[in-house]
Amino acid sequence: MKDSIKVFAPATVANVSCGFDVLGFAVDNPGDEVLLRLSDKKGVRITSITGDDGRLPKDAEKNTVSISILRYLETLGIEQGIEIELTKKMPLGSGLGSSAASTVAGVYAINQLLGNKMEVKDLLPFAMEGEFLACGSAHADNVAPCLYGGFVLVRSYDPLDVVKLPVPANLYATIIHPHVEVQTKDARNILPKQIALSQAVAQWGNVGGLVAGLLMNDTSLIGRSMQDHIVEPARSVLIPGFDDVKKAALDAGALGCSISGSGPSIFALSTSQEAAQKIGQAMKKGFDAINIGSDVYVSTVNQQGPKVI
Amino acid sequence: MKDSIKVFAPATVANVSCGFDVLGFAVDNPGDEVLLRLSDKKGVRITSITGDDGRLPKDAEKNTVSISILRYLETLGIEQGIEIELTKKMPLGSGLGSSAASTVAGVYAINQLLGNKMEVKDLLPFAMEGEFLACGSAHADNVAPCLYGGFVLVRSYDPLDVVKLPVPANLYATIIHPHVEVQTKDARNILPKQIALSQAVAQWGNVGGLVAGLLMNDTSLIGRSMQDHIVEPARSVLIPGFDDVKKAALDAGALGCSISGSGPSIFALSTSQEAAQKIGQAMKKGFDAINIGSDVYVSTVNQQGPKVI
Repeated sequence: MKDSIKVFAPATVANVSCGFDVLGFAVDNPGDEVLLRLSDKKGVRITSITGDDGRLPKDAEKNTVSISILRYLETLGIEQGIEIELTKKMPLGSGLGSSAASTVAGVYAINQLLGNKMEVKDLLPFAMEGEFLACGSAHADNVAPCLYGGFVLVRSYDPLDVVKLPVPANLYATIIHPHVEVQTKDARNILPKQIALSQAVAQWGNVGGLVAGLLMNDTSLIGRSMQDHIVEPARSVLIPGFDDVKKAALDAGALGCSISGSGPSIFALSTSQEAAQKIGQAMKKGFDAINIGSDVYVSTVNQQGPKVI
Repeated sequence: MKDSIKVFAPATVANVSCGFDVLGFAVDNPGDEVLLRLSDKKGVRITSITGDDGRLPKDAEKNTVSISILRYLETLGIEQGIEIELTKKMPLGSGLGSSAASTVAGVYAINQLLGNKMEVKDLLPFAMEGEFLACGSAHADNVAPCLYGGFVLVRSYDPLDVVKLPVPANLYATIIHPHVEVQTKDARNILPKQIALSQAVAQWGNVGGLVAGLLMNDTSLIGRSMQDHIVEPARSVLIPGFDDVKKAALDAGALGCSISGSGPSIFALSTSQEAAQKIGQAMKKGFDAINIGSDVYVSTVNQQGPKVI
């Protein structure tokens, strides 16, 4: 048995336009890294966190990574001292599933380090529990694609029913993270509690179309289906310049464009690396025009999920 | 050029549980027949309607079949006298897309009779217009699967965007038509105008799951996704015995069971002819128990749409 392991887990785009709370996908870049080390000293401890500007708790009972690892060990009845080094390589609170990436990296790492005692798919509840205990919500639309890779549909939360969807090989994602803050709480509170049945019907027509487009390798259908008339209009007011940046992405050839998770990051899908980069430049210009700095990430849809590095 | 043609078009199950207003599929049986005959006498005339108990209008400007054929001829600028014989082979107002079957049969027949001047997919607007002018609503979830065959997703109505979904070869439908009346108007009016966002999310998770299950050949996922917590609970109160009949279908092995269109017919899906027949018997017993007569239809999902007979 190795005495240490280092795992990368990817950023994720949740919601994916029309698929609020049910769709998400992973990207190759950015992502977080977790290093675990067996220790003779009992308990699970966080020895270092870098890249978080001191914002994340080091208390093992409050950090999503350590909580998930603790639950994993408790469930399997294993008493083993563990030291955790967490390296954040993406911005916090950016709408890119930052805490999901760290949590999944940790759970995947402990399972690998202890000899794969569980199947990867069965690790999901531990990662969700970590997210729940630390953040107060247990949405799976970041954690599930982060763990499974690819595009994931969360068909149901009760019981949890997660479906990995095969996707076209030439599907590229552009993500832009503008340097503004959106509180997840605000992004939830701004949503309508009630919606018109007719709006809901239009939305589930698009969800059906997006899923069909992914599975039928029909990128035009994917693009036509990326319309969200419920969540995006409500949340986009929290992101300065959203309308112009989205228009820039579509004008530059994006299949579709919407908010990543609860924002402020914005993502676009396209069918080539070249297009994805051009779209990123166009979006960046949109934020430049209103003096907001931003980072652009371009990658294919990540098919692998976490990996040992 | 032949001087007459006879076409069969199939019954359809619209909504399909969670897919209210966006999903529908065709069955092999029952269906309607339309016979068209070239005539030297100008205009489009209905010469006979059988099987409707005298309920359908024979006035060519009021009948969905003749209206659709008139629009087709007008659009192509063709002046040709046409005689129509309509043979209803399924119950009216049953939730099985009775008017859609007649209308599609007529439009398909006129296009064939005049030498296929248009592609089949381009006939949809004529059939929809016939339905709209005669019934006051232009939903495509019966007309589209009737015309295209198979399972159809109506992603959007404006613009109209219809996607034919490949389905598992072993998918069987059981339909039961209880001898009670449900007014389509009542079935619409009973629906909530507003729904909770959380309910809508659960529903579009299921729509995504149902589409994924069809395309991934995953009949278990199809079954798990056939849950409608919005429309079925509202409408099922109009169908005496619904809960017991649904339970009987599920107990007999159905993947899922819900209302066909706006009812009163009920459909169930399963994975073999044997299962579909057993399910039909169980459902019929449910209606027998409350002294309601019923007809049972068992067939595969029809892949062909209308056909010349």
